[in-house]
Amino acid sequence: MSKIKVGVLGATGTVGQRFVQLLANHPWFEITAVTGSPRTIGRKYGEGVEWRLDGDVPAAVAELTVQATEPNLDAQVVFSGLPSAEARELEPQFATAGYYVCTNASPYRMMRDVPLLIPEVNPDHSALIDVQRRNRGWDGFIIANANCSTTTAMLPLKIWQNAFGLEAVHMVTLQAISGAGYPGVASMDILGNVVPYIGGEDGKLESEPLKILGSYADGVVHSADFRVSAQANRVPVFDGHLSSISVKLKQPATVEEGIAAFKAWQIPEQIRQLPSCPDQLLVVRDEPDRPQPRLDRNWGDGLAWTVGKVANCGVLDLKFMALTHNTLRGAASGSVLNAELLVVQGYIER
Amino acid sequence: MSKIKVGVLGATGTVGQRFVQLLANHPWFEITAVTGSPRTIGRKYGEGVEWRLDGDVPAAVAELTVQATEPNLDAQVVFSGLPSAEARELEPQFATAGYYVCTNASPYRMMRDVPLLIPEVNPDHSALIDVQRRNRGWDGFIIANANCSTTTAMLPLKIWQNAFGLEAVHMVTLQAISGAGYPGVASMDILGNVVPYIGGEDGKLESEPLKILGSYADGVVHSADFRVSAQANRVPVFDGHLSSISVKLKQPATVEEGIAAFKAWQIPEQIRQLPSCPDQLLVVRDEPDRPQPRLDRNWGDGLAWTVGKVANCGVLDLKFMALTHNTLRGAASGSVLNAELLVVQGYIER
Amino acid sequence: MSKIKVGVLGATGTVGQRFVQLLANHPWFEITAVTGSPRTIGRKYGEGVEWRLDGDVPAAVAELTVQATEPNLDAQVVFSGLPSAEARELEPQFATAGYYVCTNASPYRMMRDVPLLIPEVNPDHSALIDVQRRNRGWDGFIIANANCSTTTAMLPLKIWQNAFGLEAVHMVTLQAISGAGYPGVASMDILGNVVPYIGGEDGKLESEPLKILGSYADGVVHSADFRVSAQANRVPVFDGHLSSISVKLKQPATVEEGIAAFKAWQIPEQIRQLPSCPDQLLVVRDEPDRPQPRLDRNWGDGLAWTVGKVANCGVLDLKFMALTHNTLRGAASGSVLNAELLVVQGYIER
Amino acid sequence: MSKIKVGVLGATGTVGQRFVQLLANHPWFEITAVTGSPRTIGRKYGEGVEWRLDGDVPAAVAELTVQATEPNLDAQVVFSGLPSAEARELEPQFATAGYYVCTNASPYRMMRDVPLLIPEVNPDHSALIDVQRRNRGWDGFIIANANCSTTTAMLPLKIWQNAFGLEAVHMVTLQAISGAGYPGVASMDILGNVVPYIGGEDGKLESEPLKILGSYADGVVHSADFRVSAQANRVPVFDGHLSSISVKLKQPATVEEGIAAFKAWQIPEQIRQLPSCPDQLLVVRDEPDRPQPRLDRNWGDGLAWTVGKVANCGVLDLKFMALTHNTLRGAASGSVLNAELLVVQGYIER
Repeated sequence: MSKIKVGVLGATGTVGQRFVQLLANHPWFEITAVTGSPRTIGRKYGEGVEWRLDGDVPAAVAELTVQATEPNLDAQVVFSGLPSAEARELEPQFATAGYYVCTNASPYRMMRDVPLLIPEVNPDHSALIDVQRRNRGWDGFIIANANCSTTTAMLPLKIWQNAFGLEAVHMVTLQAISGAGYPGVASMDILGNVVPYIGGEDGKLESEPLKILGSYADGVVHSADFRVSAQANRVPVFDGHLSSISVKLKQPATVEEGIAAFKAWQIPEQIRQLPSCPDQLLVVRDEPDRPQPRLDRNWGDGLAWTVGKVANCGVLDLKFMALTHNTLRGAASGSVLNAELLVVQGYIER
Repeated sequence: MSKIKVGVLGATGTVGQRFVQLLANHPWFEITAVTGSPRTIGRKYGEGVEWRLDGDVPAAVAELTVQATEPNLDAQVVFSGLPSAEARELEPQFATAGYYVCTNASPYRMMRDVPLLIPEVNPDHSALIDVQRRNRGWDGFIIANANCSTTTAMLPLKIWQNAFGLEAVHMVTLQAISGAGYPGVASMDILGNVVPYIGGEDGKLESEPLKILGSYADGVVHSADFRVSAQANRVPVFDGHLSSISVKLKQPATVEEGIAAFKAWQIPEQIRQLPSCPDQLLVVRDEPDRPQPRLDRNWGDGLAWTVGKVANCGVLDLKFMALTHNTLRGAASGSVLNAELLVVQGYIER
Repeated sequence: MSKIKVGVLGATGTVGQRFVQLLANHPWFEITAVTGSPRTIGRKYGEGVEWRLDGDVPAAVAELTVQATEPNLDAQVVFSGLPSAEARELEPQFATAGYYVCTNASPYRMMRDVPLLIPEVNPDHSALIDVQRRNRGWDGFIIANANCSTTTAMLPLKIWQNAFGLEAVHMVTLQAISGAGYPGVASMDILGNVVPYIGGEDGKLESEPLKILGSYADGVVHSADFRVSAQANRVPVFDGHLSSISVKLKQPATVEEGIAAFKAWQIPEQIRQLPSCPDQLLVVRDEPDRPQPRLDRNWGDGLAWTVGKVANCGVLDLKFMALTHNTLRGAASGSVLNAELLVVQGYIER
Repeated sequence: MSKIKVGVLGATGTVGQRFVQLLANHPWFEITAVTGSPRTIGRKYGEGVEWRLDGDVPAAVAELTVQATEPNLDAQVVFSGLPSAEARELEPQFATAGYYVCTNASPYRMMRDVPLLIPEVNPDHSALIDVQRRNRGWDGFIIANANCSTTTAMLPLKIWQNAFGLEAVHMVTLQAISGAGYPGVASMDILGNVVPYIGGEDGKLESEPLKILGSYADGVVHSADFRVSAQANRVPVFDGHLSSISVKLKQPATVEEGIAAFKAWQIPEQIRQLPSCPDQLLVVRDEPDRPQPRLDRNWGDGLAWTVGKVANCGVLDLKFMALTHNTLRGAASGSVLNAELLVVQGYIER
């Protein structure tokens, strides 16, 4: 069976390079187009890109010529690692032209008819695709994955939402520098330091969970009704977003019940058949000092959530720590998994 | 007027070195004795110590001979930088023998008759000294300063307690490596990493505030009645503890009122006359990305609190970030300021 | 064909854990014994070890019971990650008892009858094994791999030695913290800092190369005759030793000839058949800012050398930068490759 | 006596901020003008600058209005923290207009008639000022201070040049991130990493020493005649450039003689009277692990050289490590000291 042709928008950037790395040997997808900044257009990808990941540029992609980000690519699906402003302008052009856009960018995440999708959490939200196409008259569509730091909290919270209900969620994050792209955070700002600010991040952390953990019915995602508070911090860690999460539950639970709910979670059958799905998607650690970015970011090829330190919260009910790899689960790998889900669901034709 | 003779217990350790640095040219105190580990006893302090602070060992102290930590020192006041186990055993021996012990160690902090003192916050708690001496029949006494990370929250919370009342306090800390002493945190654990665990710290953060912000009356400190939740994290920062604090108030306040309360605070007259009191003890920053450890730990010679990012909390009422220098305000300098207060209050005779 | 039984001495330590990780699925070797410190003896390895590497303890090894480090193990070969003092005492006991000891420790490296082996550089030095057994009347033997930082320079220098001859080698190293084991370097010493000292390292860097690049003949390794100068520095890098190397050649060469010699090197046939041999063992980078620890330490599964920045040296003849992964190529993987070589050479019987 | 009016060119940049900090309370100089980028022109300096140093913007300077960098400032001397391209174009305009330009920029350093001045090393090179004015018909003049990393080696080498003569100097540097200004080095490049490349630095390190250690006679600085080799590395250190230096001497010396020469050096009388001259300008450490950036960069208010680890070099004659604070001694403070020297020498009129 032939592979699905995919393009990577903004392929020379930080997220774009991850897309290239992940898709280079994908069993269902084949990179047939890459786009980049004016400086790189017309050059071989392998020459235009300043590769910052381990290993070499995948050989097949290295030979592709970088194109302008215009909807005339030889591809069916496009993965977007575009910066916000460009994404806002260009992604609808691609959707109009019939491309299936899986975006890592933020502008369309909170649009009522755009699925904000995490396969393990809200796979049914993809139904918004039909609404979106009807609304906008698009041949293609846009689906988005969540902010990298929002993602960290989503599977654990979904599990507790199902088990106990959520009344309030309080998050303080410790986020890695790779989340800001390249050059991103200046070393003079972060070496031996912490910065209690990431532009726009608190807002995303306080809005996206309500959509992702909302319920789909009749063409609409009904926002979840818990309260949220978030404070994002940048720490001198390369990869891996850690989050300290306190939760008020609708139906109070003990620490043991909270842990048991995590441990009882199993990968849904639909997810298990996705080619990128690893053996483990939720790692529950018992040690008092885990999760840690360096030790836990790579579980499940960087797709797994790691949780630990479930404890009573003296102010709300329970608290815990969660960690995900921000450029894999929280960005490129998450997008690829989304696309795989859409294939299984039939939104992307094989 | 002659100076008050003081000794430093555990003078070769991390906190002990800070005591030596701070007291070397103190207008009221004069270091007349230093104690250290068996390895260093009998040697000149300047030769026995592995000095890890900027500059050289102060010349006068370098010439002192390191003594065993036994209550036969030529001193009236002793500042203790002893490790926990030694502090537990030895500090009462000093108090029994008539020494005034100002300790940075934790064992006696939560004893009912031991003042847990921060001059700007609860100077009246020193009245417990009289109770302690009566209870225990000591000629001397023990007073303690708070855990370095507890300290970070205390002045800001005291101000809001006075202004609005406190119902609940939720703290997530980002703590510097120097808080663990030397050798302390292994570099393989913390370089490019975060560790969501500091042994015993969450407990201290959840108990000490209730005593410090409690009220003294009739020989007893009545514990404050707000709820507390704390999660301590170690981050790769050299000095400076940062804390993300969310608060439920008895009497709700706007962000503007919260900031106004901070800005209205003035150094009490009694504190202003202490020789270590700097011009600023509370720095209120308006920028969205402050306080930061590297930029804000040194205000007021490392004695000042820096607060910023006062904002509405979606779960409780208000939130903010606070920062203090953990080995200065949170340890040695805090102890010295305590001793200065006791001089002014008459508990230490000049 | 059945696998060769191997034991890991000091299996709970930093290097020991790497041995366990590397040997867990080895095609020729099977871990049948692990030894550890008194604290861990008698416990399951999976419970006694504080695992600091990515992923989990390999399942098969996790079930082994940790034994004392005594020569009564059910194994033919032992890989030693013992600390220096223990290695000095215990390794000869194992060799006497007939074990083939592949050690990462330093005590026996410079003994005249102990091969200091790097398969790509001096595979013929294994002939010392026969001398050693005759001399000492041992049934087993000891072979050593080089200091991790010495290793960084060895393949590149061997190539230039062959091509141009060496008169003098000047090395300044920038070494990773993992080279000191755990807990090793205190974070207060190295965070945001550089320490121009690693105990004993300069001496190893100045002596080991002369043996490794010496020539074997008639039962003796004749020391190479070039001059060496070394200055070791510790830098806040997790893994990967970088070295700035200037060389005076016997027969002067241009930069282009120096690069050409590196690029012409091919993996020897004997090495190519070793199961751990990767596709690439020498990576030559052309960029002006490579090699870098983070980007280049993992080539060839951490077994490859990366060189770059070949340039004229204004004082000697040519200079270049070299990098290897210190706990893989420079320690555990290097030892395993040595053992594989000995299997091919017949010193270890299958 | 009234103060000399000085301007700071590029006052909002990294070096510019240091100039402002150092000159705010200078006994001889008074900041009367600051220039900045288009974004900041017309604003109060205190509002336009993004202050990255400890403490607040000095009050008096905060009130100055940022001006364009044009030679119509109310000042006699200008300190230039301009980027290279702007310095190249604008500094001659200032000199033509009669300003005395003390620059930290590189474009004019190697011009034959521009003094490349370090007061402790080559104070007589200021005589080039007269040549320069004659040659160019300028009312003002330009003097330059050396590259921050060149500076690290200069005083120690001058001492050995005087004592033993220099035949060859081999330098490998470990340089701090602040040397690249702000935003400068991306955190993704340097966190937990080392970069063996700083654009143009090796060339500066190999050319500037020959001019600085050259001899002035008859209107010309005759270049020193030793050979130089340099390799610059960037390390994750905030401030402080460390250098590993090996030297071939004209007249061989023992380690003891090398150390003795350092220890015998005394601050010249002319330097001692400069207001910024600290008590110590050369710190000689005996410990095997010094100098270190964190512990040694601040001696003498950041103006002192620290040397240590004098040892035999197996390839050349002697080697040692040297360290200076790159933004103080190596940049702003060095420029201010230069200006003070010129006041004493009469090139700047009081």
